[in-house]
Amino acid sequence: MFILVTYDVDTQSETGAKRLRKVAKECLNYGHRVQNSVFECVLSEAQFLIFKSKIMKIIDYDLDSIRFYFLGKNRSNRVECLGRETSIDVNSELII
Amino acid sequence: MFILVTYDVDTQSETGAKRLRKVAKECLNYGHRVQNSVFECVLSEAQFLIFKSKIMKIIDYDLDSIRFYFLGKNRSNRVECLGRETSIDVNSELII
Repeated sequence: MFILVTYDVDTQSETGAKRLRKVAKECLNYGHRVQNSVFECVLSEAQFLIFKSKIMKIIDYDLDSIRFYFLGKNRSNRVECLGRETSIDVNSELII
Repeated sequence: MFILVTYDVDTQSETGAKRLRKVAKECLNYGHRVQNSVFECVLSEAQFLIFKSKIMKIIDYDLDSIRFYFLGKNRSNRVECLGRETSIDVNSELII
């Protein structure tokens, strides 16, 4: 599944800044950053449930907002970018 | 078409802050804000092309990043939210 994660974490308090770091870290564990608070992931159903449960333990439900968008199996015709390109096509071969 | 717009506009300069305001204003003209720099839109192909051309005239292609995600016709099974809910289901009846 191709999943987009977007978040707004309230960083006005020190605990908020800590939550932000933790949320970003988990998102990096499961996907790659394409914009400041936007991540693209390719996950199985099981991986997504584990990822989501970790995020649920971090956030403040009154202050923070996390959104998961389910974009189907095929990323290629789902996204169009203008300007600075920051994402790698997770489905393409990585040549090192 | 249900379209998600996410953006990172570089606001380190005064012109950047101005671009941010303009981009946000256009996004509000064509959709509604669900997170700080995330908007949900329901647009026809023609409306999207006009919206995109307006955004293209605003941004700095080296500094800013705009991403359009095409989520198909039906929003309901495409998004899952945790925490603070900020979006209204654009397809549901608005009772005033």
